[in-house]
Amino acid sequence: MSQVEAAKKLAAYRAVDENLPPNAKVVGIGSGSTVVYVAERIGQLPNKDDFICISTGFQSKQLIIANGLRLGQIEQHPDIDIAFDGADEVDPQLNLIKGGGACLFQEKLVASASKKLIIVADFRKQSKHLGEHWHQGVPIEVVPIAFTKVINELKKMGAKNVDLRQGGKAKAGPVITDNNNFLLDADFGIIENPRELHLKLKELVGVVDTGLFTGITEKVYFGEETGEVTTWKGEVIGTASEEVIEESK
Amino acid sequence: MSQVEAAKKLAAYRAVDENLPPNAKVVGIGSGSTVVYVAERIGQLPNKDDFICISTGFQSKQLIIANGLRLGQIEQHPDIDIAFDGADEVDPQLNLIKGGGACLFQEKLVASASKKLIIVADFRKQSKHLGEHWHQGVPIEVVPIAFTKVINELKKMGAKNVDLRQGGKAKAGPVITDNNNFLLDADFGIIENPRELHLKLKELVGVVDTGLFTGITEKVYFGEETGEVTTWKGEVIGTASEEVIEESK
Repeated sequence: MSQVEAAKKLAAYRAVDENLPPNAKVVGIGSGSTVVYVAERIGQLPNKDDFICISTGFQSKQLIIANGLRLGQIEQHPDIDIAFDGADEVDPQLNLIKGGGACLFQEKLVASASKKLIIVADFRKQSKHLGEHWHQGVPIEVVPIAFTKVINELKKMGAKNVDLRQGGKAKAGPVITDNNNFLLDADFGIIENPRELHLKLKELVGVVDTGLFTGITEKVYFGEETGEVTTWKGEVIGTASEEVIEESK
Repeated sequence: MSQVEAAKKLAAYRAVDENLPPNAKVVGIGSGSTVVYVAERIGQLPNKDDFICISTGFQSKQLIIANGLRLGQIEQHPDIDIAFDGADEVDPQLNLIKGGGACLFQEKLVASASKKLIIVADFRKQSKHLGEHWHQGVPIEVVPIAFTKVINELKKMGAKNVDLRQGGKAKAGPVITDNNNFLLDADFGIIENPRELHLKLKELVGVVDTGLFTGITEKVYFGEETGEVTTWKGEVIGTASEEVIEESK
């Protein structure tokens, strides 16, 4: 196991150990390479039969099953105690870009239904501003029939480029999400105000949701290249990001 | 033909004659009992082969075909010159409730892609305030997996009652919209500020769109009980609705 892989595992284990309440009844589990270790750690807990796990899509469902956890559904359990998930990019204010894996809608649904959202990721996801390292653009889930109209509107709003995400070798034509929709990837460059951009996008007719997650994350655990784990905590204001980066022991 | 039916037909014909630009290239056609006469009138135009018609759902597609009009798709024609549609309730500021027929999403898509929206309806749809006569609630299209969470949030926002719309005799379980989603009918009573309510609802994770149409309608033609046609024009402020009600000749 490489140093960064070991750090991702350590980050995931620590995220679970430090945050999962002993009396949790409903736990959200996302997906991504670091969340694999989250599910592994939760599967080791002695009280793992005392809570229900809610997935953020088909991949995450498999992860829950593979680790012997109790799979529930959000239609019956819309009040989640805590959710763990990955991210494609994180800024020091704990705004996120998510949706590289096309699961943004259910990820946001679970996150917004949860009292706490804890993110685990590797150090490459750290950015001063969203859009700095993630160049694919903001993933935006749209009702299929609206895609041309929304692309036109995104360009008027300043997107340099908008792609209708294609299935590539796996599927001719566009990706279909777990909710039967399309995905647009809209490149807005460096995003100064992610919350404002999200609200403008969500307001458009045809937009189901966006991969911008703002004001929702409590803490982020990063596996570093050096093998260490660092954490970023929420409620950060301005550019004083260094103050909130606390190196783990 | 009853007096009100004759008035609906007259209202529809007049809406077409007074508003459809002679050089229109793309025309949106909705659905509802009065829009049947709109499609009939458009089908009588000598230049009917010069423009493409865009539907707001399967029912409206059939109306376009039945009247010998050229059916196009919004993915190719996202810039619509004018759209005609019905409404479930209209206030003097030309805010609308739509969605009784479960087609609100595509209706709003077409309306928002159109330079002008003209509404035709019978007099029973007139209200001083939305929610006064339409007691079924505001139709809200939601991603199926989100329905419980959204119902809980609507109740917290003050909805007196929220129903997951059922298929009734036609289909066991919930209605599935033309976009594979569910519909909630949320009763907010008298709606003082439809635009504000719409924006709050649209912001919720899981809400695809709402049946509140605000700031989008240019003119409404009503067939009256007396057999006359009245029109309401947009940009009305306050309660001076009488000033803008001009009796047709």
